[in-house]
Amino acid sequence: MEKTLSILDKVNTPEDLKQLGISEMNILAEEIRKIILTKVNTTGGHLGPNLGIVEATIALHYVFNSPVDKIVFDVSHQCYPHKILTGRKEGFTDADKYQKYTGYTAPEESLHDLFKVGHTSTSVSLALGLAKGRDLRGDKENVIALIGDGSLSGGEAFEGLDNAAVSGSNIIIIVNDNEMSIAENHGGLYSNLKLLRETNGLAECNFFKALGFEYHYVDDGHDIEKLINVFQSVKDTNHPVLIHMHTIKGKGLEVAESDKEHYHWIVPGTLDRAEDFVAENYEDYGTITADYIEKKYQEDPSVIAISPATPAVSGFSNAFRDKAGIHYTDVGIAEEHAVAFSSGIAKNGGKPILGIMSSFIQRAYDQLSQDLALNNNPATILVFWGAISGADATHLTMFDIPLISNIPNMVYLAPTNKEEYLRMLDWSVGQNEHSVAIRVPCGEVYSVGVEDNTDYSILNKFKVVEQGSEVAIIGLGNFFRLGEDVKRVLAEKTGLDATLINPRFITGIDEELLETLKLNHKIVITLEDGVLDGGFGEKIARFYGNSDIKVLNFGAKKEFPDRVPLDELYQRYHLTPELITEDIKACL
Amino acid sequence: MEKTLSILDKVNTPEDLKQLGISEMNILAEEIRKIILTKVNTTGGHLGPNLGIVEATIALHYVFNSPVDKIVFDVSHQCYPHKILTGRKEGFTDADKYQKYTGYTAPEESLHDLFKVGHTSTSVSLALGLAKGRDLRGDKENVIALIGDGSLSGGEAFEGLDNAAVSGSNIIIIVNDNEMSIAENHGGLYSNLKLLRETNGLAECNFFKALGFEYHYVDDGHDIEKLINVFQSVKDTNHPVLIHMHTIKGKGLEVAESDKEHYHWIVPGTLDRAEDFVAENYEDYGTITADYIEKKYQEDPSVIAISPATPAVSGFSNAFRDKAGIHYTDVGIAEEHAVAFSSGIAKNGGKPILGIMSSFIQRAYDQLSQDLALNNNPATILVFWGAISGADATHLTMFDIPLISNIPNMVYLAPTNKEEYLRMLDWSVGQNEHSVAIRVPCGEVYSVGVEDNTDYSILNKFKVVEQGSEVAIIGLGNFFRLGEDVKRVLAEKTGLDATLINPRFITGIDEELLETLKLNHKIVITLEDGVLDGGFGEKIARFYGNSDIKVLNFGAKKEFPDRVPLDELYQRYHLTPELITEDIKACL
Repeated sequence: MEKTLSILDKVNTPEDLKQLGISEMNILAEEIRKIILTKVNTTGGHLGPNLGIVEATIALHYVFNSPVDKIVFDVSHQCYPHKILTGRKEGFTDADKYQKYTGYTAPEESLHDLFKVGHTSTSVSLALGLAKGRDLRGDKENVIALIGDGSLSGGEAFEGLDNAAVSGSNIIIIVNDNEMSIAENHGGLYSNLKLLRETNGLAECNFFKALGFEYHYVDDGHDIEKLINVFQSVKDTNHPVLIHMHTIKGKGLEVAESDKEHYHWIVPGTLDRAEDFVAENYEDYGTITADYIEKKYQEDPSVIAISPATPAVSGFSNAFRDKAGIHYTDVGIAEEHAVAFSSGIAKNGGKPILGIMSSFIQRAYDQLSQDLALNNNPATILVFWGAISGADATHLTMFDIPLISNIPNMVYLAPTNKEEYLRMLDWSVGQNEHSVAIRVPCGEVYSVGVEDNTDYSILNKFKVVEQGSEVAIIGLGNFFRLGEDVKRVLAEKTGLDATLINPRFITGIDEELLETLKLNHKIVITLEDGVLDGGFGEKIARFYGNSDIKVLNFGAKKEFPDRVPLDELYQRYHLTPELITEDIKACL
Repeated sequence: MEKTLSILDKVNTPEDLKQLGISEMNILAEEIRKIILTKVNTTGGHLGPNLGIVEATIALHYVFNSPVDKIVFDVSHQCYPHKILTGRKEGFTDADKYQKYTGYTAPEESLHDLFKVGHTSTSVSLALGLAKGRDLRGDKENVIALIGDGSLSGGEAFEGLDNAAVSGSNIIIIVNDNEMSIAENHGGLYSNLKLLRETNGLAECNFFKALGFEYHYVDDGHDIEKLINVFQSVKDTNHPVLIHMHTIKGKGLEVAESDKEHYHWIVPGTLDRAEDFVAENYEDYGTITADYIEKKYQEDPSVIAISPATPAVSGFSNAFRDKAGIHYTDVGIAEEHAVAFSSGIAKNGGKPILGIMSSFIQRAYDQLSQDLALNNNPATILVFWGAISGADATHLTMFDIPLISNIPNMVYLAPTNKEEYLRMLDWSVGQNEHSVAIRVPCGEVYSVGVEDNTDYSILNKFKVVEQGSEVAIIGLGNFFRLGEDVKRVLAEKTGLDATLINPRFITGIDEELLETLKLNHKIVITLEDGVLDGGFGEKIARFYGNSDIKVLNFGAKKEFPDRVPLDELYQRYHLTPELITEDIKACL
């Protein structure tokens, strides 16, 4: 990195920015891009969204008076320029401080950040709340929501827009239209955005005007002067205003402009590689899933893969999507629709397989319950990345077990290896009785090399993998192998030969097996890769509540850990074989 | 009721209907209205929505070929004419069979019903799934979604429309615009519907066209001939079509047409009373809530009540709403927005109190978690009707404890009487540390006559109401009084003097107290008015897992009971003092 950033060196707060002229702000924009590129290429992170919003962020902070005026960033993966301009540029210029700030807005870092946010489509509702709070207090500050075109497909965004349009006081919504979601956009709304872009905002048929907004169009969202003019024209408005701003995702980096999806978020070192994204011949649970589906729809043309705008999560690569035709649908950021749509497909003879990240299935509880499980329609929901993790608090993936497993009728399965996963997937796709979710294993693929032939239509049948006595270890899904380790360490430390059980089912307990354990066991321990509260282990504790069996439940504490290293969490939650063995010994 | 229904007597299936002329169908419409009025006035039920959809249902079944063609009724509280025309008219003409069919579509009753549905805004997504299933199978039937204007404000409906518009094959969406939700509509969309009505569908600025739909307007949704013509014109379409149809909610019954909200759903005998809806001087937890808020916002102008289109649930009567001004907002059917909006208000100095029915809080899990609790914003969520009930399976209210209580940071409170409720409510509104939900007690108001002065900022402090030994009874919320009864019966049957505990907090356990119980208790029982799985009692069972204390958890089984009488459920779940006492004795 260059030592001198001629303008940025002088800019530490929005106040400093207000002293600059347009040409200096243009230089500032390039300097911001430069430090974002260097940092993100070192640490990984969101690239395209941030490169595309540099000028607009400068113009926003030039015109408005943050933190009195309040800016809410939707999903907030485009907040790097904002962080740089609000006292946190060291997080981008000083390699030692690259990890100091989160990749999302975080009120604990700065008064300029209003909400901790990492799920999409929430900004308009949150901002409208700020505006209402302001009105109740009788204040006058501006409230601004900045939302991407991709996020508009989420129902919560529509609910917010519908309400904001009639709120009758100051709220400024900026739609950052970069013609992309993470992947390409899907939905009828996008034809209207295209029409508006093509007519310089003048088309009569206008989605935003139909909702009642005063509408402004900015054709070049990288022209700071134009942006300043439009922002100044709406500043201190006394009614709802919507600015539709056209930007280029990945602006300023040729590869990111031309391959917007793959440069949305990059891993460290991406920009140093000559050849990017050449398909490597590796296997993960995504490629296993895609390979299965690709083969399956050739046998059974009623099979269809579905993604709510996050195809990469499920292994639905560009190659997969290109080949799949009618056997693949991206519904946009619309998890509620994705679940209901899957239910409808299953009802009418199709075989839907919806792939979704654990953190985002949270957006569709009622649809899982009412649209799907209550109707017992045989859709398959693949929940990816369900595990305790060191992620940002906005992207935790450890709440899906309480969420899904307490819904009646749902069958939630926890495979422990590749063969079980494929068998469960194939069983689910082949059956017509149950709404099924599968917690796809996390991390490295573990193969036992022997095909699984279990009939999963016999529900809630746990598998005794190794019969022992005194202590029974029930290791669910990802944590089955932790169970193997516990068994080994326990044997080393105490000489006990524990029973090892793979429950496979999360949504029901094998009462018969649990009864027989009473005969020659004193302690049953449960291991689950998720939060304990409302989870799997508590059901085992309830079952044994009236017996002499002791139960120890291992899993995560109910909390929102924020980028806490996984090792540290495992220590905190006693999730190492040694700590678990100590706890068992204390109970013996 | 008249003995003869000249046309309806001949009509048992849609096939019979197809033999009729327009004038006969008009008579049929009046006959259908008549039997709906008689039945609903006897049993209670949805009145306005059904009176408004009679002609459209006749025209639909005349033109389309159900069940091959598939009609999805949004929320399905307007499906009575459909049931009458599809083999189930006895449920309306024979008083002995009034309870035979549910008030919602129910696939177990008839092939003409596609989904069990009772939550709004789902029909387009479900129908689009049916259409996709059809396309995957290579079939050609028509798929129709019938959705009210009120339901359009729900995000899931928008997600569905956005996707349906670009689906590229047959789907027919009928927007039944009766200018009402349950109460009046709220949202910018409704100004566009008004514009479209006023221009006979010709205005250029058209929400539905903006999404890309082929759009048709029907000015009189009670003109069967017009309806037949437009339905015939779109039948077998090869692309998405939207029909915007203007109807009158409550059509044909003067009082229902003029007071649409109060005749949306009526209790038995409503039509026999001369003076309706004169405010009676009775108290329930709704009036207590409204009275508290009305007083509170006069002291503190930052207080605001919020409802997602169900104001009556929370006691927000017309009188309350008329007076409240800026201190009340109806956000339309938009539970996700309602929660995020509340979070924003709380963030900016307001004091939001969101009233919502247990069954519908399910629609906002991710917003409770991400938009609210992760941010620790001090909003107050009042969850009404949370209890085991004999309701339709689509409106169960027993899942809110697992839903809310396993979210980190949330404080979920369970008052057992009026005084506790008011104290908790006032504490929640006054504090700035926590996102709080309160499970408002159900049923008759129980007052102890002594003000509660507890400081609820000391979290998770259970209250020992009566100190005993051997057995401790933890009676949560509504079921505290069941706990009192159990204590009494247990004393009668065994002579044991049990400890009685009111936990008050659902989201955390009083570890110190639970530890001390170990000293002189053998059994701890938990009573909760909700599903056991993922609930409160399991946390107690987990806590005592490594001890000698026996734990018995009482609550509902994980299932979707469908209109099962409450007494029967209490027997099934062992929720009577006698059955619980038996279970305790068996464990002693």
